Amino acid sequence: MNITIINGPNLNLLGVREPGIYGSRGFDSYLEELRKLYPQVDIAYFQSNHEGDIIDKLHEVGFGATDGVVLNAGAYTHTSLAIADAISAINAPVIEVHISNVHAREEVRHHSMISGVCRGVIAGFGLDSYRLALEHLLNSRQ
Amino acid sequence: MNITIINGPNLNLLGVREPGIYGSRGFDSYLEELRKLYPQVDIAYFQSNHEGDIIDKLHEVGFGATDGVVLNAGAYTHTSLAIADAISAINAPVIEVHISNVHAREEVRHHSMISGVCRGVIAGFGLDSYRLALEHLLNSRQ
Amino acid sequence: MNITIINGPNLNLLGVREPGIYGSRGFDSYLEELRKLYPQVDIAYFQSNHEGDIIDKLHEVGFGATDGVVLNAGAYTHTSLAIADAISAINAPVIEVHISNVHAREEVRHHSMISGVCRGVIAGFGLDSYRLALEHLLNSRQ
Amino acid sequence: MNITIINGPNLNLLGVREPGIYGSRGFDSYLEELRKLYPQVDIAYFQSNHEGDIIDKLHEVGFGATDGVVLNAGAYTHTSLAIADAISAINAPVIEVHISNVHAREEVRHHSMISGVCRGVIAGFGLDSYRLALEHLLNSRQ
Amino acid sequence: MNITIINGPNLNLLGVREPGIYGSRGFDSYLEELRKLYPQVDIAYFQSNHEGDIIDKLHEVGFGATDGVVLNAGAYTHTSLAIADAISAINAPVIEVHISNVHAREEVRHHSMISGVCRGVIAGFGLDSYRLALEHLLNSRQ
Amino acid sequence: MNITIINGPNLNLLGVREPGIYGSRGFDSYLEELRKLYPQVDIAYFQSNHEGDIIDKLHEVGFGATDGVVLNAGAYTHTSLAIADAISAINAPVIEVHISNVHAREEVRHHSMISGVCRGVIAGFGLDSYRLALEHLLNSRQ
Amino acid sequence: MNITIINGPNLNLLGVREPGIYGSRGFDSYLEELRKLYPQVDIAYFQSNHEGDIIDKLHEVGFGATDGVVLNAGAYTHTSLAIADAISAINAPVIEVHISNVHAREEVRHHSMISGVCRGVIAGFGLDSYRLALEHLLNSRQ
Amino acid sequence: MNITIINGPNLNLLGVREPGIYGSRGFDSYLEELRKLYPQVDIAYFQSNHEGDIIDKLHEVGFGATDGVVLNAGAYTHTSLAIADAISAINAPVIEVHISNVHAREEVRHHSMISGVCRGVIAGFGLDSYRLALEHLLNSRQ
Amino acid sequence: MNITIINGPNLNLLGVREPGIYGSRGFDSYLEELRKLYPQVDIAYFQSNHEGDIIDKLHEVGFGATDGVVLNAGAYTHTSLAIADAISAINAPVIEVHISNVHAREEVRHHSMISGVCRGVIAGFGLDSYRLALEHLLNSRQ
Amino acid sequence: MNITIINGPNLNLLGVREPGIYGSRGFDSYLEELRKLYPQVDIAYFQSNHEGDIIDKLHEVGFGATDGVVLNAGAYTHTSLAIADAISAINAPVIEVHISNVHAREEVRHHSMISGVCRGVIAGFGLDSYRLALEHLLNSRQ
Amino acid sequence: MNITIINGPNLNLLGVREPGIYGSRGFDSYLEELRKLYPQVDIAYFQSNHEGDIIDKLHEVGFGATDGVVLNAGAYTHTSLAIADAISAINAPVIEVHISNVHAREEVRHHSMISGVCRGVIAGFGLDSYRLALEHLLNSRQ
Amino acid sequence: MNITIINGPNLNLLGVREPGIYGSRGFDSYLEELRKLYPQVDIAYFQSNHEGDIIDKLHEVGFGATDGVVLNAGAYTHTSLAIADAISAINAPVIEVHISNVHAREEVRHHSMISGVCRGVIAGFGLDSYRLALEHLLNSRQ
Repeated sequence: MNITIINGPNLNLLGVREPGIYGSRGFDSYLEELRKLYPQVDIAYFQSNHEGDIIDKLHEVGFGATDGVVLNAGAYTHTSLAIADAISAINAPVIEVHISNVHAREEVRHHSMISGVCRGVIAGFGLDSYRLALEHLLNSRQ
Repeated sequence: MNITIINGPNLNLLGVREPGIYGSRGFDSYLEELRKLYPQVDIAYFQSNHEGDIIDKLHEVGFGATDGVVLNAGAYTHTSLAIADAISAINAPVIEVHISNVHAREEVRHHSMISGVCRGVIAGFGLDSYRLALEHLLNSRQ
Repeated sequence: MNITIINGPNLNLLGVREPGIYGSRGFDSYLEELRKLYPQVDIAYFQSNHEGDIIDKLHEVGFGATDGVVLNAGAYTHTSLAIADAISAINAPVIEVHISNVHAREEVRHHSMISGVCRGVIAGFGLDSYRLALEHLLNSRQ
Repeated sequence: MNITIINGPNLNLLGVREPGIYGSRGFDSYLEELRKLYPQVDIAYFQSNHEGDIIDKLHEVGFGATDGVVLNAGAYTHTSLAIADAISAINAPVIEVHISNVHAREEVRHHSMISGVCRGVIAGFGLDSYRLALEHLLNSRQ
Repeated sequence: MNITIINGPNLNLLGVREPGIYGSRGFDSYLEELRKLYPQVDIAYFQSNHEGDIIDKLHEVGFGATDGVVLNAGAYTHTSLAIADAISAINAPVIEVHISNVHAREEVRHHSMISGVCRGVIAGFGLDSYRLALEHLLNSRQ
Repeated sequence: MNITIINGPNLNLLGVREPGIYGSRGFDSYLEELRKLYPQVDIAYFQSNHEGDIIDKLHEVGFGATDGVVLNAGAYTHTSLAIADAISAINAPVIEVHISNVHAREEVRHHSMISGVCRGVIAGFGLDSYRLALEHLLNSRQ
Repeated sequence: MNITIINGPNLNLLGVREPGIYGSRGFDSYLEELRKLYPQVDIAYFQSNHEGDIIDKLHEVGFGATDGVVLNAGAYTHTSLAIADAISAINAPVIEVHISNVHAREEVRHHSMISGVCRGVIAGFGLDSYRLALEHLLNSRQ
Repeated sequence: MNITIINGPNLNLLGVREPGIYGSRGFDSYLEELRKLYPQVDIAYFQSNHEGDIIDKLHEVGFGATDGVVLNAGAYTHTSLAIADAISAINAPVIEVHISNVHAREEVRHHSMISGVCRGVIAGFGLDSYRLALEHLLNSRQ
Repeated sequence: MNITIINGPNLNLLGVREPGIYGSRGFDSYLEELRKLYPQVDIAYFQSNHEGDIIDKLHEVGFGATDGVVLNAGAYTHTSLAIADAISAINAPVIEVHISNVHAREEVRHHSMISGVCRGVIAGFGLDSYRLALEHLLNSRQ
Repeated sequence: MNITIINGPNLNLLGVREPGIYGSRGFDSYLEELRKLYPQVDIAYFQSNHEGDIIDKLHEVGFGATDGVVLNAGAYTHTSLAIADAISAINAPVIEVHISNVHAREEVRHHSMISGVCRGVIAGFGLDSYRLALEHLLNSRQ
Repeated sequence: MNITIINGPNLNLLGVREPGIYGSRGFDSYLEELRKLYPQVDIAYFQSNHEGDIIDKLHEVGFGATDGVVLNAGAYTHTSLAIADAISAINAPVIEVHISNVHAREEVRHHSMISGVCRGVIAGFGLDSYRLALEHLLNSRQ
Repeated sequence: MNITIINGPNLNLLGVREPGIYGSRGFDSYLEELRKLYPQVDIAYFQSNHEGDIIDKLHEVGFGATDGVVLNAGAYTHTSLAIADAISAINAPVIEVHISNVHAREEVRHHSMISGVCRGVIAGFGLDSYRLALEHLLNSRQ
């Protein structure tokens, strides 16, 4: 099974950026753990601060190259209709994840442009949000 | 480990009610499967159409009787500040779950009164939303 | 033909409560008259101040026990998504009625949570609103 | 007893226009049936696509020429304060009717400019909405 | 003189729930003190997490059984039109009280559904809010 | 000097319609008085309940046939962008008048579509509002 | 091929009205040019300042008498749900056109009541907007 | 007859301030003209940039010292509920006037806090707005 | 104990102004009664119609000269952020009081700019609102 | 004559993406047809999913390199003020086009950030929207 | 060069008032430093808690007496249209300054009534905001 | 001392783009002047039309490589939560600058997504805004 994790803007700073909100662990170390936990899954990883790059990547993987996308679009979650359109356009199911509980933060983070076109949303469980998305993709495939 | 699943209004009709949205499986049969999948967890179950009953139950289990609550508050998700206050008042972590992707439905379902006081939100994965919540509670406890 | 009339919060006080708005006749005496007017209809009656009770009752009668529901949800009309969901969930047609012309009163009463999922709305005709609902159910059945 | 039915814009197309919403029966044939059902009532009928014509007609019949008006103002329901003012100005009671359940349609149809100055509202019962209005006028007169 | 104090949802947890906001004293001990301070007043007490129970209680006491109601409707203050209707329906004067200064908290608590139909509002004085309401009822009766 | 007074919908009912708001004097008798008070002014008068008629009349008189228009657009004041466009299109100055103080009435009457394209607004002085408009046109011409 | 051009309120003043916005050419002269440019098309023309007239005309031509309607509803674009309903009701495709770029003008002109029920919108190209609509109708028919 | 003209903030700068909007004539010279035009009226004049001064003055003259107040509250028109309360509190009728057409200016000037409690509003006629107010007070007294 | 009562705009007219809302008793006579009821409290009194005076007074008494302020800011309650800032700036606790039930009046009076920075709010008890504020200050000091 | 067509995000997927909305033809084949239809026009083509790339391209061509830009900004139409600023900054006229009728889709697509700074808008004609834009540029140049 | 610094409500308490937000230094000592830093500038200083005083002062200095005004209008920034009008009325350029970053505080402080009529805004640099304003006035004069 | 100036979209066109708003001087020439004025500061410069590039650059310089960032995010100021998150994530202080007075322009430019996470804002002083930001960074460091 092939899964692609896409991280959006500022998520390259995980472990460094506002650890009170995002935790103090970098994503690389977490990714390693995830790959060990789910050896049966081939997990591709992509991060970019560019809205256009995320769209390009969704197009690239969304027509067969992946069985599912786990997408943390960061701040673009709340402002990007273009990413929402890319999700609608592709075939692969996309799961929206967030590390923090966006609903417990500023009001601008309470509305997502992309939730309605994703399969579902998982938010607030720290890095475990990514694993739960994987769990679902594995489960829904069986 | 003790987990309490609380289902809100109209969820007693699962399998019967609008199967296009909620699926055609009753919750009892799903609960059985869940208990088999996670034999190490003692899963208590409660359903009510009464806002007050859900508050009473949260009070009852929230001070030690459970290690975590998986709450699908149904329509009360969008209208009940009183349930939100109950979640804030208790000690047990509460995870908000939804069977359908509420963000892909009517606008009134896009805003949750309780997300901000829950640990996190899982929505849109059918009945698997409940299992993912369990997964997290198990994982966060280790 | 079986019809169920459900009255919501504060409607047990009809005849006593704000007679300038709701009139000075109690519902019991009106019900008697209605049963005499339509002897061919078996009219069941239920009143509760509890949102959950109204949902329970809709579930109870909505899958065959009644040919139609005449529902005056009182103030819950304007606040209860859970009752709206119950109406969507059941099979029996539901007609929303109001004694007063809610649109000639405070703004909070101008919006109904349930109109969109009922068959139709009848408002402003005093107690005659209930009879008109009955008239329609009888007529639509012929 | 004299009753006037006034139909507003596009209702001359009943039976032709969007039959999924408005049904496939023309108003003329329905009017005939209505007159047969209520031989004791003299039912006058008027239709116009012009807001001003509807106001003129309300003025004409509203001071004694009719015992009640059954008004389906069509789209003007949602945009015409001038028709609302005409209803306030005349003596005859006016009942607002709609064929479709306007609350189950686009948001622009959820608000009526005229409900607050009518005696009441009947919406969603197909052509039977007109008969129910008649029923009430007959009943309230006895 | 007979006074009824009604506490709404989650107020059974006073002393336990969020002591930073609501203080660390339970209501029972406070009630005892109040009764000692005002021996000339017969203070009845009722608490429920159920919106319907609060309405039932208001109906029960509101037609003669009490000289005044001191109501802390908790979160229902902000969501319950049905309780507001019950207050309008009964004869006894109702005073809205809050322990915390609701205006210094989240925006959802800034608007009350019931203030407009109560005699007045007292908010922000901790448990002393209840005593001030009593003081007024005593004073307005002399 | 030529002045045209245009009265919009329902103003043909002056003296009959809601006398508590609009007074009990018909416009004809007032017009006679006005013509006597200002013999040096040739006052043309037009009333219609049709938005289109008012536009047609504004076009007809607005390019030289009148030195000024006194317009009471009635309810169209609040809904007609088309009349506003007609006022912008013509050369003659237009003065908006209202008999009642629209700002002391329902909120829908607080906003005017046409004020911004009129020379000025006079509201609340009963029929004297028309005379004041005349006074200004006379004065601004000297 | 038969095409009907319908111009709404104040468009009879083209060439006279606010030439900075609408240009200084009358519609008659433009129509002549258009007919010369497209000799293969039979172009009918209708203008009215009356909302009802536009509805009547749409009904008249919309069931076979025309292959397409080019509609500049003027200010009614922004206020008339009744015209929108007429467009939905008829069979002929309707193209919404505007001479000026409505989006570069006052906010009230940014929202159209009719765009959603037209085939498409062409705005801002001066009188050429009409020709482009024709171009499309010709092209889509081939 | 005694009339008081009250001018609010920045109106001391008339003739100096933004002459494109307010004209180039000072108020003193206009007041002189007004007194000559209406020798039978004793016109008192007061100007202040202080909201409190305007309230004090309204109290001072409003209980018998004047037969009417002509009030141009300047920017306080749009922000001062306290001046509105003062107008409600006194006995003398108050007429709201504006030199410019406030409805043709920025949106913040489209809403008046005081119109609803004044007898009427006159706006947009330059300094002549004051004379029209006088005209009405004279007329309504006869 | 030293307490300062500050009354805002138009409250100098108590007993004269709108007695249906504010009662017919002047504040001086009430103040006398209050001083007799609470001989142990030194009650200073200040009234002004000037926002700036109220701020000046709050500064003057707020750093030691008083043990508490009872503030009825009148209409400034709803418009003055500057008074709210003054309350935040000083040390003395401030209690917001209102004679009328502001929530039962016009919507503009439903929102207070100052509640969030006061200790609490007492509204709707007539002049008794002031006494209740005193009661609390006395009680909280013991 | 030189024309530049710029397509924004997800438009590289034309023919593949949601064919129910966007049709099943790829843009390359359409472009070929367009070039054949208008041999006298040199049509440059650019597509990018990157907001910044579209701005860069507008800068590159907007000062002389092109006689006009046909821009389908896709989802950036509704979110990009930066593209609007680029259009304002350059000399070449820009025409906004859309394949689908954006006004018949989700509300978020009803508002365009760029319409006000484009020459005009063409929406809803499928791929023919591009040709109509070309038609206008050709015509306006003659 | 003559510069006038005007400080609005509660800024007399600088150094005392909420030092976490406004710092612990009084304005007098800062003014001294500023005068030493810019000996070539004659810095006049004015503070008042009265909206009217600030307007009076702007009028006094704004027609020649000063080369520029540095205005920290405090809370009046967010509520005073009258001060905005005074700024528009005078000739001297006005620079809006704030000590705290108003955009990082409560929402009511995010909107300024005066920014649009000032030359520019400087906010968030503590007392250094005043110096930066001076720097600009000096620089723009050279 | 190291300072980084970052200019966002369309600012590469300074001197060319809308000179009425942005002036006719290119940024390069201004930068040279700035470097001469502040020889003690090492000023790095970066411009991009890409949101992602600005985020990348903020990450690159924000952890030690610079003592402060002067950021003119252009139109992204009003739409980019991702840039706001980048500012929150880094250590270096960021100052928001604007050449024009954004508050005197279209409403969409009145709200900034980034002000709340910057140290402060400087807007409206032409290119001098950049120098003032530098002045502050220099001053706050001493």
